[in-house]
Amino acid sequence: MSERTDQAHDRPGVYSVPGQDYDRDTRYITTRITADGRDGYPVEPGRYRLVVARACPWANRAIIVRRLLGLEPVLSMGVCGPTHDERSWTFDLDPGGVDPVLGIPRIRDAYLARDPHYPRGITVPAVVDVPTGQVVTNDFAQITLDLETQWTAFHRPGAPDLYPEDRREEIDEVAELVYRDVNNGVYRCGFAGTQASYERAYHRLFERLDWLSDRLRGQRYLVGDTLTEADVRLFTTLARFDAVYHGHFKANRNKLSELPVLWAYARDLFQTPGFGDTIDFAHIKAHYYLVHTDLNPSGIVPAGPDLSGWWAPHHREELGGRPFGDGTPPGPVADGERVPDEHAAPRP
Amino acid sequence: MSERTDQAHDRPGVYSVPGQDYDRDTRYITTRITADGRDGYPVEPGRYRLVVARACPWANRAIIVRRLLGLEPVLSMGVCGPTHDERSWTFDLDPGGVDPVLGIPRIRDAYLARDPHYPRGITVPAVVDVPTGQVVTNDFAQITLDLETQWTAFHRPGAPDLYPEDRREEIDEVAELVYRDVNNGVYRCGFAGTQASYERAYHRLFERLDWLSDRLRGQRYLVGDTLTEADVRLFTTLARFDAVYHGHFKANRNKLSELPVLWAYARDLFQTPGFGDTIDFAHIKAHYYLVHTDLNPSGIVPAGPDLSGWWAPHHREELGGRPFGDGTPPGPVADGERVPDEHAAPRP
Repeated sequence: MSERTDQAHDRPGVYSVPGQDYDRDTRYITTRITADGRDGYPVEPGRYRLVVARACPWANRAIIVRRLLGLEPVLSMGVCGPTHDERSWTFDLDPGGVDPVLGIPRIRDAYLARDPHYPRGITVPAVVDVPTGQVVTNDFAQITLDLETQWTAFHRPGAPDLYPEDRREEIDEVAELVYRDVNNGVYRCGFAGTQASYERAYHRLFERLDWLSDRLRGQRYLVGDTLTEADVRLFTTLARFDAVYHGHFKANRNKLSELPVLWAYARDLFQTPGFGDTIDFAHIKAHYYLVHTDLNPSGIVPAGPDLSGWWAPHHREELGGRPFGDGTPPGPVADGERVPDEHAAPRP
Repeated sequence: MSERTDQAHDRPGVYSVPGQDYDRDTRYITTRITADGRDGYPVEPGRYRLVVARACPWANRAIIVRRLLGLEPVLSMGVCGPTHDERSWTFDLDPGGVDPVLGIPRIRDAYLARDPHYPRGITVPAVVDVPTGQVVTNDFAQITLDLETQWTAFHRPGAPDLYPEDRREEIDEVAELVYRDVNNGVYRCGFAGTQASYERAYHRLFERLDWLSDRLRGQRYLVGDTLTEADVRLFTTLARFDAVYHGHFKANRNKLSELPVLWAYARDLFQTPGFGDTIDFAHIKAHYYLVHTDLNPSGIVPAGPDLSGWWAPHHREELGGRPFGDGTPPGPVADGERVPDEHAAPRP
């Protein structure tokens, strides 16, 4: 996977710069947690904590993959609230505003534990080494790949192979286009500093969505006939599309719900265990509309859109496909990790 | 018609006030142009100029009614550009930035001609007495009613009766609800100063749209079986709904295009001569997104939405109805008053 272009994050700070294209800071802590421990951080049950925010699409990937692979018993998860202060995402959802495992109020503290002069963006997802309290990595694109390929000894029985060796080239190719034009493309729409820059991003986004619609018209998943990393990456943007990107980022040629193929594809994933049950629409809306004060100075969070459509029949099973390949769906969401009903798309 | 609550305008100045409900300034110049000239301004061909902006929904009513009634030869029209400076709408579309009939660069000049200390909002629509250069009235709700009931001697042959005597009570009733919850309701969403105030307006808006959908499910027009003032008033808000109010004002439970009855009703009107041919989507989008810098500091104007749906078949003729009653549709748009193709919804 071309890591250097496939990196992005949600971080506190400045977003749009008048007169400029949006340019994502893609410098991450690239230390890896691997089976062989080559970077000094071997895969080890109970040692690390995945810190996320449910609002963040990049973190959402890791939440989904961890759950699909059944890594909950060996890799705990800390959840930041939907908004953050100027310097950091915070553990404001936890009693006393402190993460119960790391004992810190801000994920920034774990970055400073790693490097007291840490100069770059404080982002989620981040994986923290619990004994030292230090961030090991915030390289979100590598995080899910490593969960898939390095943590195999701890995958649940029946875990799907989300990054199958014989499909990696195709997954990487699709994911790169999706990243550039869709995952990061919506941010390039929303944070464009000029009209021309916005319009370039808008056209690239919708041309890519049309291309994806064509690709998905006759096949159930993006690559092969099973769920892969490529689907996870597209899904977290689609889940936010109508709730946030359509209005807030002006990605408004159409709503996702107006693109029949892609909307059915998104609903299919949403209704698959491990995808929709990670989506907290309340956190998603609160994050974007409250944090981006340059785009939404009033801080008013839209009451819409109507989310009931997410549970409508999608009929994608008629295309065949084996969602989990030779494996099985994950079980119920782990205790304490359930998205509250009032934050979720209402079931019919 | 309950005039004192049915008044509103688009005017330069402050919009949302943090902590407060949006409260429209409804004090207008209520002088009337009547057949009997009781206020000193008798109906007279060639004497007055209707000043509008195509962006403004309140002015749009007058543009539609003037055209439906065929008043173009007796009441000329000046068109302000979509944006305005802090003090006034301007004639920036005209050569030299000056209205060719009134000889002024700003409609404000005509307000000051009427009252050098004019203290209230500089709004469109305004009707100006050409000989004196003074605004006669900007009381937009009365303006269309007077075009319908006072200018009858100059209506074209076949002009519809948009305010029939035996339907006035019902028209007034419907129009009042539509004004409160829809016409002004979208502004109450967009300019709400608190989350609670926004949510109240949002729920009232969509409850009213649902009520309108129910009413229009089995009947082609809002009141009786012909086009009336009530339809004109609802239409100018619906025409702007997906292009502006859905995203910019957070009126986003659904797009209009997701409400099947109301969307078919809106398309029916749009495709009726005198309605859709007055709609300048480019001016509409530029106005809201460029003028409301408190809502959209970046000044970026969305490239969407896809407008091609406006010309899709609506099948509302199956409900019967006689659009123009015993009259006929208006002819082609007058010379010099055509909305440029590139500002209009593209025909299939």
